[in-house]
Parts: sequence; C-alpha cells; structure tokens
Amino acid sequence: MKIYGKRIEKAQALMREQGMIGIMVMTRDDYQYFFGETRVQPRAIIPAFGEPVFICFKAEEDEIRSALGDTEVKFFGHVGQQMFSVTKTFKTLIERANHEPGFSPDVKLKVGMQMWFQTPAFLVDLFRKLNPQVELVPSDPVMDELRMVKDPEEIEKIRQAQKIAALGMDRLKELLEPGKTGHELATEITYTMMKAGAFGTSTPIHINSGIRSCWIHGKADHEEIKDGDLVVVDLTPKFQGYCANLARTFVVGEPEPQQLKLIETYFEINKATREALIPGVTVGRLDRIGRGICTEKGLKEYHLNGISHGIGLRFEETPASTILPNHRTIKIKEDMVMTIGHTILAIPGYGGVRFEDVYLVTPDGGEILVDYPLDYEF
Amino acid sequence: MKIYGKRIEKAQALMREQGMIGIMVMTRDDYQYFFGETRVQPRAIIPAFGEPVFICFKAEEDEIRSALGDTEVKFFGHVGQQMFSVTKTFKTLIERANHEPGFSPDVKLKVGMQMWFQTPAFLVDLFRKLNPQVELVPSDPVMDELRMVKDPEEIEKIRQAQKIAALGMDRLKELLEPGKTGHELATEITYTMMKAGAFGTSTPIHINSGIRSCWIHGKADHEEIKDGDLVVVDLTPKFQGYCANLARTFVVGEPEPQQLKLIETYFEINKATREALIPGVTVGRLDRIGRGICTEKGLKEYHLNGISHGIGLRFEETPASTILPNHRTIKIKEDMVMTIGHTILAIPGYGGVRFEDVYLVTPDGGEILVDYPLDYEF
Repeated sequence: MKIYGKRIEKAQALMREQGMIGIMVMTRDDYQYFFGETRVQPRAIIPAFGEPVFICFKAEEDEIRSALGDTEVKFFGHVGQQMFSVTKTFKTLIERANHEPGFSPDVKLKVGMQMWFQTPAFLVDLFRKLNPQVELVPSDPVMDELRMVKDPEEIEKIRQAQKIAALGMDRLKELLEPGKTGHELATEITYTMMKAGAFGTSTPIHINSGIRSCWIHGKADHEEIKDGDLVVVDLTPKFQGYCANLARTFVVGEPEPQQLKLIETYFEINKATREALIPGVTVGRLDRIGRGICTEKGLKEYHLNGISHGIGLRFEETPASTILPNHRTIKIKEDMVMTIGHTILAIPGYGGVRFEDVYLVTPDGGEILVDYPLDYEF
Repeated sequence: MKIYGKRIEKAQALMREQGMIGIMVMTRDDYQYFFGETRVQPRAIIPAFGEPVFICFKAEEDEIRSALGDTEVKFFGHVGQQMFSVTKTFKTLIERANHEPGFSPDVKLKVGMQMWFQTPAFLVDLFRKLNPQVELVPSDPVMDELRMVKDPEEIEKIRQAQKIAALGMDRLKELLEPGKTGHELATEITYTMMKAGAFGTSTPIHINSGIRSCWIHGKADHEEIKDGDLVVVDLTPKFQGYCANLARTFVVGEPEPQQLKLIETYFEINKATREALIPGVTVGRLDRIGRGICTEKGLKEYHLNGISHGIGLRFEETPASTILPNHRTIKIKEDMVMTIGHTILAIPGYGGVRFEDVYLVTPDGGEILVDYPLDYEF
C-alpha cells in the first residue's frame, strides 16, 4: 500500500471548488489511484478536509492496521454495518462542513461517486436512500482533472501493458489459420499474456471473423475462421491495474479490393489522427479528420465517430465520447494517454476493420507507446 | 439466437402484475435468458404487451435481420441514436398502456431494469433523465420469479461449468507448492479451464495464502506461497454463459491444530447446511445452522452470515443476502441452484477457510452438481 498524498490533496482542493464534502471510493481504479493497491470491492471515503477513512472487512483488520498505522479504519462484519459506517462518516462530514470555508448552509452538500461501468446501479440507489441529506453527483469533475493527465509511472505501466498485448498479438499471428476458432486462439493468447504478467483483460478478447467483423463489440467463441475472412482482433490485457488496447485486422488468404480499400482508408485515418493528437485538440475534431478521409474515399456513410478515447486505470476513461457524447468537446492535454482506432469502419453485410494503438499526447502529435507493425498480413 | 417465447410470456404476465410497461434489457445475462445468445452491451426492450424490440448497431443489421426476421429492430450509428430509440419505444408503450387492462392513468407507469453489478450507474441516471414520464424500478420482482428456478437445460450448463472448475482445481493441486505465486498458478489454471471450454471467469481467480486467507474477496498476485500456509482457492469459470463456483482451502505442509479446527468446523457446516437445503427453507435459517455449529466449537465470534447464494447466468443471483440483506427471508424452492460455502470462516490475524460447492435444491436436501473431493490435502 502506498498513500498518494499529493493526489489526495489535489482531489480535496477540487472537491471544495465543486462543493463536495467527500468522494465515496468504491471502484478498484480510484482506490488504486489514491492508495496504490488493487482491492476487490474496496470502500473508502476521501473527505474534502482531513484524512481518508477506510471501511474494511473485520477479519482483515490486523493486516490493514499494519499497512495504515493509526489512520481511521471502520471495520464491518456484514453489509449492514458497512452501510452504517458510510452513513455515519458522512454525517460527521456534514457537521464539519458547517465550519469549513466554501460550504454554505443554504446549498445542499454534495458527495462525489464514480458512476462508470464499475459502479453497480443498486449501490448508487442505496446510497441515495440512506444518505438523503446529501446530493450524490458524479465525481468526474474532480477525478477527470486528476486522472486525465498521466505521470511517468503511469505511462510506463500502460506501456508495459501494451507490450504484453503485443506478445499476445504475435502469438495470434503464429496460430491464425482457417479452421481455428476464436476461442481456441483466445485460449492461447490469454496464456501467453498471463505468462508475461497480465492480470486478466479489461474486455473479453475479441476475435470477430467474417461477417462478425462488422460488430461494434466482440467475443471469441466457437465460430471457425474461414479463408477470405477479415479477422478483427482486440487485446486488452491489464498490468498492475493499467490497461492496454491493441487491435489489428487480418485478411485470411488473398485480400479482395474492397477489403484493401477499407484497410488502407483506416491506415490513412490512423496516420492523420496521430499527427493531429496535440494539446488543445478535441476528440470531436479528431473524428472530423476521419470523416473527411472517408468522404474522399466514398466511404462517408460508413464513418462513425469515436476514433479516440482515454486509457489508464480504466479501459475507457475521459474523454470517452462513445460512452458520454459531451466528451467530444474536451480539450486534449499534454501527457494524456489516448488510443486511436476505437471505431469499426464497416460495410454492413460485408465486413469491417479496426487498427488501434495507444499514444502519449505531445506537442508534436501522438507518440506511440509500443510501435507494433501496422499490417493486415500475418 | 433462440427466442424463449414462454419465458417472455411469463415475464409479460409478471410485468402487468407489477405495473411495469416493459423491461429494459441491458445485461448479457438477461439478454441470454430471453434470446439465447451472449452479446456484449446488448439493448432490447421487452414490453408488457406485444413483441420485443431490439436496438442494434447499424453495421450488424444484415446479420440481425437474418436471425430475427421481421421482428422490430431499431438501428443506431451512435450512442445518441441509441438513447433516442429507447425513449421513443417507451413513449409508444406509454400511449399503448392507456388502452391495456391493468394500467391506471392515475399511477405513474413503471419500467423495470436489472440494477445489479452489470448495470452501470450512469446509464440508470441517464435513463431517468431522458424518460421522466416513467418510474424506473428494479426488474427483480419479474426476473427473480423467472430465473430463480432453473430448468434442466440450465442445470446441465451449470454442471458443465462446475466440471470445468473441477479440472482447474485438479490442476491447482498438481502445481501447488511453496515458492509458487498465486499468479503463476492462476495462469496455468486459466489455461486448463479455457482449454476445457471455459469462457473466462465470473470473478478473478482467488488464491489467497497465509494471512490473506482471511480476505473477504481475493486475487492471485505475486505473493509466494509458504510452508504452513492456508491457501484459499476460489474458481468461477463460465460455460455458455452459466457460472461455476468451487472453493477449497489447502494446508501447505503439516496442519496446525487451529487450522484443522477451522477446517473441520467448515466441513460440519457444509454437511448440515446441505441437508437443510430443502424447499421452504430461508437463507437466514441456513445461516443459523452455521452459527450454531460455530458456537458449539467456541468459534461464534468468527461466524458470518451468507453461507449460501443463488447461481446461474450471474455468479451471485437471488437469493444473494451478502449483497441484498433482505434476501435472507426468501424461501428456497425446488430446482433452485445454490452454493454452500460462500463465507470465510476466519480468525483475524491467523487465517481463514472456505469450501464451496454448487447444489440443486430437492425435497431431500441439496444434490451436489459435481462431487469434488472435500479435502484440505493435495
């Protein structure tokens, strides 16, 4: 365990700006961001003032005490006690807020919570029911400000994750042939990536072949790969909590002109988008580059927005415009880490392609973290 | 794809009883339950009257049309269109509800949604914002009624998943020795289980050794296993969407009397709970059996509630009292599938044990789906 004091201080300053008395941490990624370790279903509260409060399972007390010293920890034996500890902590914070600058007794106090995919809906409803005296709001205005820009330690971990994805893709290329199923390939790729240090993947491995290459999401099942198929492969291993995202599309056998046209168009989109990935650009602007290229190539009707998204402790993090459309206007900053190649370019009923890599934003454009061959041959 | 018409009809009858005009399906498990295939981030609406409506990505149109014939499908190119289709469908359903028996214009119409771990909080908030004319409620009163009791096809798939877990546990026993790390073992177990047909696991593989055997949740990391350790292993492979749950605790080297006491107590709890797993019993009653045994053994203060939970397309499904405490009063029915061995029996600072298997509820008690050796030796 490593308490990131500066991150906590920065979060606290932002919370006070936002009128939040605290953030309820319930996801692995936020927990790791502040406390440097992964924990399944963690519970902690970072108040806008004072020290974090941990809510832990009672049989873990000795271990947690030795890591946290005299930090405030509330222990629970069952879920009722856990909820009670949360409510009690916020009651204390509400009382304290009356004496803290920046909080007005006339405005309902806010509590921030991450509302993304890792936060189950029922816990949010339960929190609101048990804590009616506060307004529960997304913690994004605080957490995005902190987490969008990566420090060198984070960039290095994402690079390591991406290197593991590259090993997985190498293995795929060794094994890919007609007759193999997505699941057989995913089994071997998973083994390779775990041996290289991956702790699972952020999404199921996608191996979408043939007509399924059109899919917006993917899976690896018992469908056999056939000669002539486009095969879209998306690998998302995690390393020390950080995510990778490497996608390639392969042509099994001799490529058709239409397949080549899709692929070459995507290559062009990748190149132009990468050059444009500089501080100040918006994700919306990046999408317009792709739209322009598709229009030139007569593929305009197949263009989709969402070429790029943030990546870090979450697989998709701010900006993530295919999840939250208002992220299209967020301005990219230096040292953000972004993917390019998120959206499928697909002709319905025919097939689709994607080539996705991870880049560091620099004033000279996107600097690729791991320069994996951009190719459809294997 | 296979449309389960009887399940849909039964759901519709229950929806009308509950005043729901429809259920918004957004999770893989509910989607598979009604439509027989897994799909990542599926979107469909099952109205209380009439046919289901599917909301699909436009490039998948040809494929979906060939599977669904002339069923109503709304296609989207971006997330804004997707939301619009949902809202529009519910507007039509609201208008229709005025002419349907069972819906009163004086009572706000309800829409059901699964609110468990697979449903992200932001989508629920977004749905509420875009559809203020309906009240969003948990779909549990409809879905629990359908899904708690399993049909033979479902029982067989859970059994297959559990057989895969058994192969994983066999592999663990072959490899377990001091000096190995949890991650090394998890890598090999995952490979074995995927080769046997597993599609990932429901939870990360737990290999909690030494003091970490006290943990309420688990992981498999670079901590080395040591002589004298208790090693809690929990395997949760999925097979065709259905979940397994097999946990064992092993003693590395010669067991201490205190370790043996915990293990033998757990064996006794397992046996007595299994005999009591008959129609009509509540999960709360099952917990009282364990509490009684722990009290007899002088371990009362370490007893925790939550020995048993439902399992199926979700890893933990109703009744799941460690997630939703009010499930303690649900009466178990014949042909439900339940685990026994969910909670850790742990002495803080010393170590903990768990032995978990999956059972079919019968009038004669729990019938184990896969009879894996109940042993701490390997």
